[in-house]
Amino acid sequence: MMSDFGRVVEKIRGRQGSVICLGLDPRWEGIPREFATTASGGSRTKAETFAAYGCSVIELLKQGLAAVKIQSAFFELLGPPGMAALAEVRKYAEGQSIPVILDVKRGDIGTTAEAYAEACFGGSSTDTICACTVNPWMGSDAVRPFVTRAQAASGMVFLLVKTSNEGSRDFQDLRVDGKPVWEIVAEKLRQWGEEWNAGANLGAVVGATHPRDLVRAREILPNTLFLIPGYGAQGAQAKDLRGAIKPDGSGILVNASRSLVFPWGEKREAPRDWQEALTAALHKMQADLGGLSP
Amino acid sequence: MMSDFGRVVEKIRGRQGSVICLGLDPRWEGIPREFATTASGGSRTKAETFAAYGCSVIELLKQGLAAVKIQSAFFELLGPPGMAALAEVRKYAEGQSIPVILDVKRGDIGTTAEAYAEACFGGSSTDTICACTVNPWMGSDAVRPFVTRAQAASGMVFLLVKTSNEGSRDFQDLRVDGKPVWEIVAEKLRQWGEEWNAGANLGAVVGATHPRDLVRAREILPNTLFLIPGYGAQGAQAKDLRGAIKPDGSGILVNASRSLVFPWGEKREAPRDWQEALTAALHKMQADLGGLSP
Repeated sequence: MMSDFGRVVEKIRGRQGSVICLGLDPRWEGIPREFATTASGGSRTKAETFAAYGCSVIELLKQGLAAVKIQSAFFELLGPPGMAALAEVRKYAEGQSIPVILDVKRGDIGTTAEAYAEACFGGSSTDTICACTVNPWMGSDAVRPFVTRAQAASGMVFLLVKTSNEGSRDFQDLRVDGKPVWEIVAEKLRQWGEEWNAGANLGAVVGATHPRDLVRAREILPNTLFLIPGYGAQGAQAKDLRGAIKPDGSGILVNASRSLVFPWGEKREAPRDWQEALTAALHKMQADLGGLSP
Repeated sequence: MMSDFGRVVEKIRGRQGSVICLGLDPRWEGIPREFATTASGGSRTKAETFAAYGCSVIELLKQGLAAVKIQSAFFELLGPPGMAALAEVRKYAEGQSIPVILDVKRGDIGTTAEAYAEACFGGSSTDTICACTVNPWMGSDAVRPFVTRAQAASGMVFLLVKTSNEGSRDFQDLRVDGKPVWEIVAEKLRQWGEEWNAGANLGAVVGATHPRDLVRAREILPNTLFLIPGYGAQGAQAKDLRGAIKPDGSGILVNASRSLVFPWGEKREAPRDWQEALTAALHKMQADLGGLSP
């Protein structure tokens, strides 16, 4: 059982062998200078530059991508023009038939959650599908409105089960009768999927920086699509992902943000041959992940 | 020790006796029809209507308000024009010297958290102060960038310690060695405040729908400013708040959203005498809370 989002991801894997999710986290300093000016020599706003670079990266790497994850924070920082830029990048990816994950990490209840969910899924055109990330801390009534809206849109909600950062130890690893809290979140995810008849619409974020946790998460959630951050700049490697792959080779989206979008370092000036640098970074990741097939 | 945000809140309490936080959650259906048209008879966009009504509610009730909490979701739903409307409402409240809490419930790490924090605190003019709500699930490295930015702006971060919704039982109430997870979050909040020398910049969201938890939260956090949702539409009453007040009568902001902004019901058409209905709702809340003084 898969959502349309899951089906497209799986189709891309079947066709191109790709499980790579491009994480678009635009940082001003790292964007090649040429994007700050238009073809006619005028200067772009910061938001326009973010949009132009985002679309160019997608265009350049699209043959190797199973999904694009857009980090909302960097666009929100630019105010209303930033939100327009985010919509433009999203539309561009959707136009290339690449599934989009809005990395918003929202979490709220009732009509507020409905509004956030509508802001995500309602922004998608009818013939495209998308997903968003959701924080589980507030519990079932904070998660369900997102899932309900995802179901209507044949999209997905990726719950933050176990994140890749060091601070994830603080609360996610607390032990309840010997079991870490994040495992209880994973169990709830499975239970909600059954109760709400929405197993296809619920995915899990599980960080690659915790390889043993990936194995355990797959045991608890044998059929769930995992969105895996932590690869690349955060230090995880292909071998760390083995435990998360399903027997048929499916079940994961491996996100790389900085290492794919700014392989020269996001705070350094981009080299003249930035296009070669991007494709080289993609090929390196493809080669690294190539040995993963079961 | 108080942040400038805390000082303003306390000054308003001293001068006006108010601990009321107006929760602005604009819903299209409940807004008086006249706000959909301008003075010259033209029609406003939805976002413009949200802004106009939000500013009017603040203007009408400002003598009784200790803070204004703006719910970001309903503005985000309207896209870039909605974000411009949020900025307008915020500016209006700040112009009236009312502290603003941006209810964004964000949570992310590193430079992403910095971007979210900058989007909140950077949007404030230099002589005003603000706060935002932050989700603790991802741990210390997801909280700290918000706190660092709040410190620079003399503002505050309200951590979601124990929320007012039913689903808060799912994970916040799980017991670790007999102690609920939310209490461990409260203890971490205190510890981080000390370690980061930021006790003045860290507040706690603790729902009024759990009166016993309010008492316990105050024991763990004797000096922390609590932002208390759940009053009014969610069913909590003044007596439920007693346990959270500090001996000198300070320490709480009691939020009311729907019951103050749409006392006629947020999905019903507003009555002609909507202004009287709003002030009556404020007076009712003031009378109800009046008996709280220690």
